[in-house]
Amino acid sequence: MKRTAGEIAQHVAGRLVGDPEKVLNGFSPLADSRSDTATFITSTKFRKHLSLTQASLVILKESDSAFCSVDHIIVNDPYYAYAKATELFIHETVNKQIHSTAVVDDSATVGEGSSIGAHSVIGANVVIGNDCSIASGVVLGDEVQIGKGSILNANVTIYYGCQIGERAIIHSGAVIGADGFGFANHQGEWVKIHQLGRVIIGNDVEIGANTTIDRGAIDDTIIDHGVKIDNQVQIGHNCHIGADTAIASSAAVAGSTIIGKNCAIAGLTGFFGHLEVADNVTLTAMSAVTQSIKEPGHYASGTPLQPYRKWQKNFTRFKQLDEMSRRIKSLEKELIDLKGE
Amino acid sequence: MKRTAGEIAQHVAGRLVGDPEKVLNGFSPLADSRSDTATFITSTKFRKHLSLTQASLVILKESDSAFCSVDHIIVNDPYYAYAKATELFIHETVNKQIHSTAVVDDSATVGEGSSIGAHSVIGANVVIGNDCSIASGVVLGDEVQIGKGSILNANVTIYYGCQIGERAIIHSGAVIGADGFGFANHQGEWVKIHQLGRVIIGNDVEIGANTTIDRGAIDDTIIDHGVKIDNQVQIGHNCHIGADTAIASSAAVAGSTIIGKNCAIAGLTGFFGHLEVADNVTLTAMSAVTQSIKEPGHYASGTPLQPYRKWQKNFTRFKQLDEMSRRIKSLEKELIDLKGE
Amino acid sequence: MKRTAGEIAQHVAGRLVGDPEKVLNGFSPLADSRSDTATFITSTKFRKHLSLTQASLVILKESDSAFCSVDHIIVNDPYYAYAKATELFIHETVNKQIHSTAVVDDSATVGEGSSIGAHSVIGANVVIGNDCSIASGVVLGDEVQIGKGSILNANVTIYYGCQIGERAIIHSGAVIGADGFGFANHQGEWVKIHQLGRVIIGNDVEIGANTTIDRGAIDDTIIDHGVKIDNQVQIGHNCHIGADTAIASSAAVAGSTIIGKNCAIAGLTGFFGHLEVADNVTLTAMSAVTQSIKEPGHYASGTPLQPYRKWQKNFTRFKQLDEMSRRIKSLEKELIDLKGE
Repeated sequence: MKRTAGEIAQHVAGRLVGDPEKVLNGFSPLADSRSDTATFITSTKFRKHLSLTQASLVILKESDSAFCSVDHIIVNDPYYAYAKATELFIHETVNKQIHSTAVVDDSATVGEGSSIGAHSVIGANVVIGNDCSIASGVVLGDEVQIGKGSILNANVTIYYGCQIGERAIIHSGAVIGADGFGFANHQGEWVKIHQLGRVIIGNDVEIGANTTIDRGAIDDTIIDHGVKIDNQVQIGHNCHIGADTAIASSAAVAGSTIIGKNCAIAGLTGFFGHLEVADNVTLTAMSAVTQSIKEPGHYASGTPLQPYRKWQKNFTRFKQLDEMSRRIKSLEKELIDLKGE
Repeated sequence: MKRTAGEIAQHVAGRLVGDPEKVLNGFSPLADSRSDTATFITSTKFRKHLSLTQASLVILKESDSAFCSVDHIIVNDPYYAYAKATELFIHETVNKQIHSTAVVDDSATVGEGSSIGAHSVIGANVVIGNDCSIASGVVLGDEVQIGKGSILNANVTIYYGCQIGERAIIHSGAVIGADGFGFANHQGEWVKIHQLGRVIIGNDVEIGANTTIDRGAIDDTIIDHGVKIDNQVQIGHNCHIGADTAIASSAAVAGSTIIGKNCAIAGLTGFFGHLEVADNVTLTAMSAVTQSIKEPGHYASGTPLQPYRKWQKNFTRFKQLDEMSRRIKSLEKELIDLKGE
Repeated sequence: MKRTAGEIAQHVAGRLVGDPEKVLNGFSPLADSRSDTATFITSTKFRKHLSLTQASLVILKESDSAFCSVDHIIVNDPYYAYAKATELFIHETVNKQIHSTAVVDDSATVGEGSSIGAHSVIGANVVIGNDCSIASGVVLGDEVQIGKGSILNANVTIYYGCQIGERAIIHSGAVIGADGFGFANHQGEWVKIHQLGRVIIGNDVEIGANTTIDRGAIDDTIIDHGVKIDNQVQIGHNCHIGADTAIASSAAVAGSTIIGKNCAIAGLTGFFGHLEVADNVTLTAMSAVTQSIKEPGHYASGTPLQPYRKWQKNFTRFKQLDEMSRRIKSLEKELIDLKGE
């Protein structure tokens, strides 16, 4: 994939200082830049790399322009401009058809400009909007709806009745709408509660590889507009994830958790279920969300990594923490008594 | 899906107070109930919702009957009756055939009333019992056995030789029988130990989406009757999970762990391997099971969620825990000495 | 699968004491051995099991030979010999063809002796080396390269442009090359950073079921030779995993983490991103790698499992850890003052 500096400048609405015909074949990182690629600088603290850059084009702020001896594009927000520029370098499969091996139910509707890959299976009454790209090996259950411009990568599964908004990107192996984990215990045996809700996903949502989002037990599981979910995340039944919240890999959100808008949730974080989390909450990786979070802010839990032998000693002492606290209190009291004498 | 109050009352063996011809189109939650749906009340503490209910039918205990002004069904255990009633509202795909695109080895046996979805692949000598529903994109390795009445959702993979009991429900993306993680280190290189055991799964087991259960190294990995496993759980080689134990999402059970019956294991719990866990053990989410658990009961580990700045201070102090303990002891001794003077 | 004692002895280059025509139908564990199987003893501490063994053949060291009353094979390293011997008992599907339902792009190259299973989809310009085994339901994106002798199990997905080395084993549901989790926040909305790098995997790598390895944002994600990755592991974009490192199940490695050679990383471990880990580092299960690790050695984090009520008390005290430390210091000071009086 090759693009000219002029094309990039136009796409990011920046001002090009240099040759518009110069050809770039991708990006390289500023600290390890290569010729014939573009790069970008997001902070003045990286100016030492800028002065040494091997890149053929740099996206930068006005204030860095004087420190750059190669061709560059001046923008307000270089990181955003870089994100926009990556759109020009995407590999696109040319196929814009329904592959002959795809099994599409007669009652399904496939929008104009949409493609369906080999060996995909599209159920009864499915509605796929215009300009969607459904890759190979995808299985859509009956009555699934996919909004226009959405991309479903290979081997995605969507269960019966679930709805995906517009411009979704769903990565391979993701499973949307499997049963929530619900059973009634009857005389020592688990009786299945069939999960009658759906998963409803808003517009502009991205869902990572092998992520699972369960259908609701009675009502629906809801993922709002603009939510970004990384790989291997689990979202339990009847969760509601607020708009523009980002959830990093391997997090697990137990059922009926309500998460606000614009939250940033780091990897391997666990939500204990039936909790509410306010808008604008940031969670450090591996946090244990044991209770509702009512105020925006940055939260964390956990203990530090240590050499094993040192850790082992502290680890054991954790069992005595309550006792230690009471001994301190007792010491304080005795000392006061002693002073009083 | 529509059902009458009379059909529901009969199915849950309850006593209907009201119109048997009334039509219900599903369930709604008691606290947010809608007309033309059924709901249920499990505890007298929710009676305030009962008095305000918009639902057209309520499943309840005898003792709540007088507080309910709409049609209702009286049962002994409303939660169990609700679970049973959900069976009436399941969406079922009508297809009861082997799809023309399915690739079924000539040596495989498919029971009466069983269906196989599009693009599924059934290996040599596979035996599928009666009334099974194998969805699309499922791959069954050679010599796999599936008990009668089992449901395998789309894109499930089962490796060579594994056996699934009767009435199993396996969700999409689950992988049963991949190799356990076993290597011998020979002169700094890992030499693969081929995993010669199988996975043997009892009756009435449910396995969640993208869950993985590894085949045994020498002997088999065993999942007993009635076990319920949520999404994204990992079960290592040669584990034995006891009957009716429930494991919530994203838990990881290292190899050769023996877990007893009727355990309730919450999400993201980790088992460190080669441990034994007694029957009737409950584990809080994100527990680290670092050693065997010999007594039934409720166990937990981990630290509380805190605002980041406060957490950071306590986090750092964890490294001094052993030292703190020794300083307390020393203070106690000095104080005794001082008093003795 | 049946093998003679003579075949096994020859394969492991050991010295057989006993009948070379004796037939073995697999392995059994030393402590629970069965007739007509082979077993092995790795340490003199298991000699009590050796004297009682029901196995028909034992792989052992010279020093254990005198304590063994049944046929045996003498080797230097019984565990390694056992690993080698398992190669003789693998179930192999006979098919060595491209299945008629596989969709292979005309521009793809498939090496001699390689098989492709039913309903697999091979993209444009894909290159598959000789003697590869691609199972059913596998999807390879355009320009993927697979080295000779590699095994891809059912329902594996590999995205555009990724490269897999020789003799790889990739388990079902694994997704290689999905987009890394990268967005630029522009006026409160997440703008996708298209991920232009690839995943490059060395020789002799094994990747577990449902594991995900993301493509690089700009440069490539690199998995070196001999790396062994268990199930449900997540490797973020631009990570570099050093040669012969082993990563157990459900670990999550955030983006741009550099892990050295010969590391042993236990399950559910989390790496917080943009960290470096030295060679020869061992990490206990569920470790939180919050900072770079510069020295080889064994590290851990976390708190012990306890009965719930005891845990709850200590759990709460964790919030007071910093305060407790300061109170100890204050007590020490007061005591010194008191003594000085």
